[in-house]
Amino acid sequence: MQPRDLELGILGGGQLGKMLIQAASRWHMRCHVLDPAADCPAADIASTFTHGTFRDYETVLRFGEGKRQITIEIEDVSTEALHELQAQGAIVHPAPDVLDIIKDKGAQKQFFKEHNLPTATFRLFDSRSEIEGAVRSGKLKLPFVQKLRTGGYDGRGVQIVRKTANLGALFDEPSVIEELVPIQKELSVIVARNTHGEVAAYPAVEMVFNPRANLVEYLVCPASLDEAMHRLAEVTALKTIKALNMVGVLAVEMFLDDAGDLLVNELAPRPHNSGHHTIESCITSQYEQHLRAIFGLPLGSTAMHSPAVMVNLLGAEGASGSPVYHGWNECLRKPGVYLHLYGKQEVRPFRKMGHATILGSTLDEALEKAKFVQYTLKVTA
Amino acid sequence: MQPRDLELGILGGGQLGKMLIQAASRWHMRCHVLDPAADCPAADIASTFTHGTFRDYETVLRFGEGKRQITIEIEDVSTEALHELQAQGAIVHPAPDVLDIIKDKGAQKQFFKEHNLPTATFRLFDSRSEIEGAVRSGKLKLPFVQKLRTGGYDGRGVQIVRKTANLGALFDEPSVIEELVPIQKELSVIVARNTHGEVAAYPAVEMVFNPRANLVEYLVCPASLDEAMHRLAEVTALKTIKALNMVGVLAVEMFLDDAGDLLVNELAPRPHNSGHHTIESCITSQYEQHLRAIFGLPLGSTAMHSPAVMVNLLGAEGASGSPVYHGWNECLRKPGVYLHLYGKQEVRPFRKMGHATILGSTLDEALEKAKFVQYTLKVTA
Repeated sequence: MQPRDLELGILGGGQLGKMLIQAASRWHMRCHVLDPAADCPAADIASTFTHGTFRDYETVLRFGEGKRQITIEIEDVSTEALHELQAQGAIVHPAPDVLDIIKDKGAQKQFFKEHNLPTATFRLFDSRSEIEGAVRSGKLKLPFVQKLRTGGYDGRGVQIVRKTANLGALFDEPSVIEELVPIQKELSVIVARNTHGEVAAYPAVEMVFNPRANLVEYLVCPASLDEAMHRLAEVTALKTIKALNMVGVLAVEMFLDDAGDLLVNELAPRPHNSGHHTIESCITSQYEQHLRAIFGLPLGSTAMHSPAVMVNLLGAEGASGSPVYHGWNECLRKPGVYLHLYGKQEVRPFRKMGHATILGSTLDEALEKAKFVQYTLKVTA
Repeated sequence: MQPRDLELGILGGGQLGKMLIQAASRWHMRCHVLDPAADCPAADIASTFTHGTFRDYETVLRFGEGKRQITIEIEDVSTEALHELQAQGAIVHPAPDVLDIIKDKGAQKQFFKEHNLPTATFRLFDSRSEIEGAVRSGKLKLPFVQKLRTGGYDGRGVQIVRKTANLGALFDEPSVIEELVPIQKELSVIVARNTHGEVAAYPAVEMVFNPRANLVEYLVCPASLDEAMHRLAEVTALKTIKALNMVGVLAVEMFLDDAGDLLVNELAPRPHNSGHHTIESCITSQYEQHLRAIFGLPLGSTAMHSPAVMVNLLGAEGASGSPVYHGWNECLRKPGVYLHLYGKQEVRPFRKMGHATILGSTLDEALEKAKFVQYTLKVTA
């Protein structure tokens, strides 16, 4: 294959699409983006931009026509259209059948069970009344976590139910009910698999959440785990991508519970927020790795050259309107602080407006600088 | 200043412009490119592309209208138009008066002399007959180097004249005649100066030329110099940018002659081929540094985190037509090899089609991988 033959259609033009295009641009790969927002982060550097809804069958079909290779930067797309494009001969990675499993958190959990991947105990329900019935009859114990099977993301569509009095707040849609596991750590391992079946895993990252927004506040890589747990996390993630038979990059989000068990929580079949740091801290970024994987190129080294901390730059509470960035200059003054702005035209509370990756010669040094960035860098309206 | 206010007009859309946009894209800075080739490397990722000749006064004036800030990726532009845009209130870095000095190798040499910057002895001539006369009268000794005052680049417009019999091949245009200095090493130091007068220097790089094409074949960073010579190279480059009072990134190309003296050879007032490696090997790339400098942001750290070798990917001898890349897969298999393809639609002998930066934990390790890349990576038609 010749580099000039590498053209790529991307469903979605958010920050993940944008950073994928930044990686593709190094090889002068032409990238075509479909997104409903004309001012989406990826539009500015895409080779061509198509304005349209990636959830719509006809729109995706039209977008995909004549494109040899297609990928996604968001799961919530018309997989029906991707199945059809695949049938017509397009190369689609991740494959639509993988997306069908991952888009449905119920199917995802069943997949974990079938493949002996460790995961929190769960049951599937179709409605609120069904769950209420199970609680009343004593077959379902509180507390538990309810996750919408489809449509939820970035913490939306997930809730913890602790008391019977709160059952009225249950989502009245098909959902997964999962035992509430006491969590020691939230981890993510990004793995990749190329068209030849070659696999690679990045070092595990540890996520620290903003409790209010239920969004990752910062992540630390490598995670503070002992060698055996690092190895187990890696093996589990590799087992997952092999079981899925998937091509591309896969983020395997895991819990380390209080009992010391590692549980697979959720999958994202694409470059992921927890892998932003790889751009500056690893030999091969997750974005380049995704391109290598889907085009059948050799996977790159996942070794880190520096410990790294990633801080999401979220819209401030109450912020709404045109974004104003604070502390930008001060952060640029710190060596090893890399700022990424996504170019979103509107700030909203907790919206991901950018991120900073902070490198240090030690993790402690990186963490210290990261705290400075967290206090200094703000986006208001 | 707000990141969203950072818009930039760039004269020239070659690989330097492309990599400048790649850096700007991280901050979601909108970049507008003017180039005579619609399929130039930067066109694909520019926010807007204007098809036109950057040497033409009217074209540059029209391009610059309404743009707050303008820079260049090639010196050979209409500085008359830039003077006019500056007079109209646009921020132009590097300033047109700096470009006027640098575009004329005669003025450059006189500038070195006036500012006590060490440089090879020279005289200026207007025509071939004038030079011949000086040789005949014994006032000018052979061998010498003739450099066209304007219009030469990438080794073109430069020739060594060793014998009286070759005087007929002299360029019959205004030129610099320079003593032929026996050269130990060719070096380049990239320095930056921001609008606040803050300066920074990158570690010196050592260039190895392809003797046939007179183009850099690979460069090695850090250069193999003793500590004192490293320091002298840095001080000389910083003295140069301060003397020029220039804002932006400046490549100061130097010779270390056989006598052990450091001589300034030529300047390039922009990101430079000898700084490509900074993308992967330094905390701040030369491209980001240029943006920081011209927008008055704090300069970034120039520290290297790995020794690096850069290999230009040149069109093969006799190659002419649509490019075919060889050895791409094999090179991607080597950890720490970063390939950049410029996306030029036509290969010509010795045309710069891309480059590879090779990192290693030691310079020897990087050099070994670089040799593999040099033997493996080829572009033919």
